[in-house]
Amino acid sequence: MNVKAYMAEVGRQARAASRAIAAAATGDKNRALLAIADALDSHRAELIAANAEDLQQGRENGLDAALLDRLELNPAGIDSMIEGLRQVAGLADPCGEITDMSYRPSGIQVGKMRVPLGVVGIIYESRPNVTIDAASLCLKSGNATILRGGSEAFRSNQAIAKCISQGMAEAGLPETAVQIIETTDRAAVGELITMPEFVDVIVPRGGKSLIERISNDARVPVIKHLDGICHVYIDDKADLEKAFEIALNSKTHRYGVCNAMETLLVHADIAEAILPRLAQAYTEKGVELRGCERTRAFITADLASEDDWHTEYLAPVLSIRVVDDMAQAMEHIETYSSRHTESIVTEDYTRARLFLAQVDSSSVMINASTRFADGFEYGLGAEIGISTDKIHARGPVGLQGLTSQKYVVFGDGHIRQ
Amino acid sequence: MNVKAYMAEVGRQARAASRAIAAAATGDKNRALLAIADALDSHRAELIAANAEDLQQGRENGLDAALLDRLELNPAGIDSMIEGLRQVAGLADPCGEITDMSYRPSGIQVGKMRVPLGVVGIIYESRPNVTIDAASLCLKSGNATILRGGSEAFRSNQAIAKCISQGMAEAGLPETAVQIIETTDRAAVGELITMPEFVDVIVPRGGKSLIERISNDARVPVIKHLDGICHVYIDDKADLEKAFEIALNSKTHRYGVCNAMETLLVHADIAEAILPRLAQAYTEKGVELRGCERTRAFITADLASEDDWHTEYLAPVLSIRVVDDMAQAMEHIETYSSRHTESIVTEDYTRARLFLAQVDSSSVMINASTRFADGFEYGLGAEIGISTDKIHARGPVGLQGLTSQKYVVFGDGHIRQ
Repeated sequence: MNVKAYMAEVGRQARAASRAIAAAATGDKNRALLAIADALDSHRAELIAANAEDLQQGRENGLDAALLDRLELNPAGIDSMIEGLRQVAGLADPCGEITDMSYRPSGIQVGKMRVPLGVVGIIYESRPNVTIDAASLCLKSGNATILRGGSEAFRSNQAIAKCISQGMAEAGLPETAVQIIETTDRAAVGELITMPEFVDVIVPRGGKSLIERISNDARVPVIKHLDGICHVYIDDKADLEKAFEIALNSKTHRYGVCNAMETLLVHADIAEAILPRLAQAYTEKGVELRGCERTRAFITADLASEDDWHTEYLAPVLSIRVVDDMAQAMEHIETYSSRHTESIVTEDYTRARLFLAQVDSSSVMINASTRFADGFEYGLGAEIGISTDKIHARGPVGLQGLTSQKYVVFGDGHIRQ
Repeated sequence: MNVKAYMAEVGRQARAASRAIAAAATGDKNRALLAIADALDSHRAELIAANAEDLQQGRENGLDAALLDRLELNPAGIDSMIEGLRQVAGLADPCGEITDMSYRPSGIQVGKMRVPLGVVGIIYESRPNVTIDAASLCLKSGNATILRGGSEAFRSNQAIAKCISQGMAEAGLPETAVQIIETTDRAAVGELITMPEFVDVIVPRGGKSLIERISNDARVPVIKHLDGICHVYIDDKADLEKAFEIALNSKTHRYGVCNAMETLLVHADIAEAILPRLAQAYTEKGVELRGCERTRAFITADLASEDDWHTEYLAPVLSIRVVDDMAQAMEHIETYSSRHTESIVTEDYTRARLFLAQVDSSSVMINASTRFADGFEYGLGAEIGISTDKIHARGPVGLQGLTSQKYVVFGDGHIRQ
């Protein structure tokens, strides 16, 4: 296979289909989503069989347990893909929404209309459910999609692709509006991210190294989600009970997620009152603690190194630092945060307001767990990723992040004087 | 001078200053804008003298008349920079605006806060007034700026830079929040667009070749304004009077601007009624006409070539095509438009609605002159450029386009269940 020619053909078809899908009625897009759900439901055996082949091959290739776990598609996983499709069908259509209409002194009426981006390329690793998540959000937001999943999940994704095509056809929408790359050749990724004539934006989903590599080589805008080094700062004006619950929940609710706290910052004047109690709770949950020298005056913890402040553990490990005041906490965040999510626990009005205004992260919280930084929790319905970029979309990216706004002008023969 | 080291130092200072300027009070930013205006006013002689040296050098270097014209800074030009600064001081501060606050079922309250992008790099050609335009919009939107003007205007820009520094200092804001590159070495541009650690976005202002070159080489997001191949489509259901005025105004109000019409599309059934009258008006204004074969059945015009449909004339030249229907007009726009601005003239409700929804340009108009596609006309107050991109900002980019939104979450000890 000539990968360059193949990808150019995929791109051409996506660009052509993007016009039809951008113009598709909301009802037709919803019918397609539901038909894809039905197709998945009626092809469970084929999906499981294709996935079993991927798993078998994965085991032969020596994939580790975590990777095999992410690769597995079981009946519950199929249920949740079906449920996801139905939820996206139920979301409001962002396309065509007109806002900010106003009359100008010239007499023209100006506003903004929300429109699809065009063609979205998704590059992801071995989880087959991402295929459905990404395809459904792009479809609902009126974009054509080119999906490139990990080669470990190749057979599973091809089986899912058949269900998507069937659903699109049943709703009378072009099947080429959702294309899944039919080669495991890595050169396909290199082509996908360097075809600005066919692809409007790339959303990479996966580890930091994948995303950095793609960002460096792309000639197309990339909506990046790098890492989540999230902080909770417990101010000396904090309510102790809230501080305890938030610090515990932010770290221990789930470990392998980007919105988990990795570093806890504690005001020196409240450290003695909160740290021993927290340390006990963390230890009971099996969290390994690493603290600065001052932290180790209050609790038992390994000495944290400079590296610790820079690390997204994604594991039951927590670094703790005692700070003199909020200014020092904010300085620490400025230096070490990945600008994903930070939370302050305080009852002080002025400090809460300052933290909210000045901390430069995609989500900034007062008296809430960092675990809330999520598309579902924010009411976006679903998310295609969490952007740590500042351009275009920041924080959880849902349907709206996959659209843009054009200006619309209504006149009645108006000309410029 | 070691350009690489110099630019890294400029970048470091801009990044540091961006924190102070992002946190600056609206009143302080406005005081700085007005103080810069006063400094320009009290240094008129120095500005004119510096500009005279640039002009002298330009003449010696054989710059053409148009370039010298753009380079010239006369008393009226200084007046208009001062007036621009005062207008920007009068605009609402976009920073800190919180919108879309709502309670979620979990009990948290979620919204979005508008925040500066950080550090904006502006690369432009020889017009010294762009220095003040760009600096004032970036300052008001809470961004630090690095400005790189054309080498022909070097002395003028350095004189303006002194006034900016003086104004910033008077308002107690860091002078490094607005930096004008102090070298004409072209390598400075190459450095500026490849420092993602110091620069958040690049806004190039100038010709298409400059912008394409920068976009190709940048490792930082670029807000692009390529060309303006704008269309007016006169439908057979158009009001003849409106069609005449809009077609005339869109082409002849000004020629060298990106929102001027370059191609007129006319429905076959109305061509006989409108084209001869329009051709006469165009000819009286000295506009050269190039038409398709069908156009030439109604008026005298050179035969338009394929190249004509692709050309942004920026001059008193117009290409005209007679089409069978709106679908063919939209197909022509899809093929040849630069996605800047298109306008339909029609009284037909269904066609107007379809054109508005399906034409994929940064501004889509009904019964209005394309010349309205402009930040001032849209009520943005001022614009730093007109984006023909889809990502981040589309159409005229004002203060809002120089900002981003972060999520803010208010809780009361909320944790995730």
